[in-house]
Amino acid sequence: MALVVQKYGGTSVANIEKITNVAEKVARAKTAGNDVIVVVSAMAGETDRLIALAHSASKTPNGREYDVLVSTGEQVTISLLAMVLQKMGFKAKSFLGSQIKIVTDQAFTKARILKIDTKLLEKELKAGNIIVVAGFQGVDKDFNVTTLGRGGSDTSAVAIAAALNADVCEIYTDVDGVYTTDPNVYDKAKRLSKISYDEMLEMASAGAKVLHPRSVELAKKYNVPVYVKSSFNDNGGTLVTKEDSDMEREVVSGVTYDRDQAKVTVIRVPDRPGIAARLFTPLSDENIQVDMIIQNASIDGFTDLTFTVSKKEMSKIKSILESAAKDVGAQGLQVDEKISKVSIIGVGMRSHAGVASRMFSILAKEGINILMISTSEIKISCAIEAKYTELAVRVLHDAFGLEKER
Amino acid sequence: MALVVQKYGGTSVANIEKITNVAEKVARAKTAGNDVIVVVSAMAGETDRLIALAHSASKTPNGREYDVLVSTGEQVTISLLAMVLQKMGFKAKSFLGSQIKIVTDQAFTKARILKIDTKLLEKELKAGNIIVVAGFQGVDKDFNVTTLGRGGSDTSAVAIAAALNADVCEIYTDVDGVYTTDPNVYDKAKRLSKISYDEMLEMASAGAKVLHPRSVELAKKYNVPVYVKSSFNDNGGTLVTKEDSDMEREVVSGVTYDRDQAKVTVIRVPDRPGIAARLFTPLSDENIQVDMIIQNASIDGFTDLTFTVSKKEMSKIKSILESAAKDVGAQGLQVDEKISKVSIIGVGMRSHAGVASRMFSILAKEGINILMISTSEIKISCAIEAKYTELAVRVLHDAFGLEKER
Repeated sequence: MALVVQKYGGTSVANIEKITNVAEKVARAKTAGNDVIVVVSAMAGETDRLIALAHSASKTPNGREYDVLVSTGEQVTISLLAMVLQKMGFKAKSFLGSQIKIVTDQAFTKARILKIDTKLLEKELKAGNIIVVAGFQGVDKDFNVTTLGRGGSDTSAVAIAAALNADVCEIYTDVDGVYTTDPNVYDKAKRLSKISYDEMLEMASAGAKVLHPRSVELAKKYNVPVYVKSSFNDNGGTLVTKEDSDMEREVVSGVTYDRDQAKVTVIRVPDRPGIAARLFTPLSDENIQVDMIIQNASIDGFTDLTFTVSKKEMSKIKSILESAAKDVGAQGLQVDEKISKVSIIGVGMRSHAGVASRMFSILAKEGINILMISTSEIKISCAIEAKYTELAVRVLHDAFGLEKER
Repeated sequence: MALVVQKYGGTSVANIEKITNVAEKVARAKTAGNDVIVVVSAMAGETDRLIALAHSASKTPNGREYDVLVSTGEQVTISLLAMVLQKMGFKAKSFLGSQIKIVTDQAFTKARILKIDTKLLEKELKAGNIIVVAGFQGVDKDFNVTTLGRGGSDTSAVAIAAALNADVCEIYTDVDGVYTTDPNVYDKAKRLSKISYDEMLEMASAGAKVLHPRSVELAKKYNVPVYVKSSFNDNGGTLVTKEDSDMEREVVSGVTYDRDQAKVTVIRVPDRPGIAARLFTPLSDENIQVDMIIQNASIDGFTDLTFTVSKKEMSKIKSILESAAKDVGAQGLQVDEKISKVSIIGVGMRSHAGVASRMFSILAKEGINILMISTSEIKISCAIEAKYTELAVRVLHDAFGLEKER
């Protein structure tokens, strides 16, 4: 008998019909003889509705109250799923973060899990219950409701799987696994049967949206096998797991792209020590991530500093940087929102030389100009003009042989 | 400095605009130097939406899960009201039943409050916070979410006022107080400035819907002064309080009516001891209240048994009674749904003789036939044909001089 933790996202529980589908999948795992814990998100659209309510109440809603509000979304889903499971004849019981005790820090709206009390879960499993847990939420030491931020339900599921040493954590979503690239962009994309934690992390940060990076980090830390599957079909899925020698055979496992990128150049920055920190610290204070960074060679004691940021927060970024640029005596800002980032990812890169130069020449052959480059041990990213995104994805996918069955 | 508990119902918090109105009323009480606790219901329509969800998940939703679900309604309101108060510059904090600890029994969907922990409330008041409490909900000893059933938020407010020995419990609703009769039926209805707990209880059970009887019972038990006021204007309101000599001066304080009545006759019931119990026990087992009861004189060892019940549950009542009637050897059922109940209420009746016969003759003069009668120390109710309801209310209101200013 195995212990299975399953997680279903918002689109999988969007209405009672879909919740009934979920219940059937859950029931199958239970009937097969497993102990089952199900973690669910809010019904699709519900969290957005609640966030809109919060913003209609206050432009800057208090974090504590915000969490009280948005956590109701998951609370609704757990009760409905438990009811449907009971109707089907199963013993089922719903639990809030505060009931289990999923203890978090006090960083409202983006809390981190500190500890999960396993006593109640163990008792209820022993009693034969299917346990339905509200994802995305926890409780701090003073018994305030907290939420974990975007991707929080994935994190809840992996954390519970880790705490109970579950045999597997299955993440059900609207795609049936992790693909070599986005099938909507290139129909030759193939589902990967297996991928390493590190590759999954790089994929997520490079624009693939299947799993939230926090949940992958947690899975890696506690070595939780995570299975990404579809809620809507029984296709194979992708196992996210420890790196093994199989994975190294392929140079590249996937090609990702991220259109939510803008290039910002701070012009004529005085080239003195500490200047970069004075520009970037106000951004990191506001939780804005800067991705690729290039600094031109200095001319006359001045340089241009170029970097990429998320387009979503551009108005905030502009106002922060305009004042920071003035502060350091730079001439001004230049923003280009018509760029995207294309990345190739694979643990095989570690043992294969020349992958980067191969990527650059493939893009060059198509006349795609590389605006910026950043690399990690297992990833190479290039910023390019946005209009070339699909072309770049396709030629890289072809060149690295990703359409092959593996 | 007084401690004021205010309660706002669903129509008072139906949207952000109305919640802002509520916040302004709350702010006024706080600015006047009071400690303020606000108890709120779910936004109008929200509880019905959640109940419909529950019934779409299961025809017979499990009580524990049902309470997890419907309690989210109040949770949404408290966070929004706290946000608006904060935006206005006040210190405010929301609390769930489980956070305060409003401890109830385990009767899900209709739990009764056993104890309210006052420590946290006292601490937060001391810290200068306006406290916003989710009405209608509590928590049992095992930390399950419970709800109090219909009228639960009134009960929450009065219970909190009692536990903290508040100076007043103000119930804000969509009417500006308790009237001598329904102003929609008779425009000569006058608002009562004061009414006794007992009268309020009789009014509620006789069809007036201003306050839920449970909250009035609780207020009476702990002697909590309850002020019924309008959320939408600053009219005077009605104080529900201990009986005083003023109140006895008037014979009748109010005329109520209840259209949700049906008359059921069980025909040719064998007239033996224990028969009535065998008919009524299955009804009370299903929580169905039987109101007026008449038993005809026995002929040939058979009698007809007539009583009134709520029309709402008629299909359920019929199926129970048909089997019970068969069971005791009665001939069958007769149901008349075209009746209503008209009542006059007043503590003054205790010291005035002949009130009942006066009521009967007033109705008789208008040609209104009295089908059934029931009386208490301070109330006389007559079942009449439904079509005479408004007429009966008007003539009784006139005859007992209720249009007078008092």
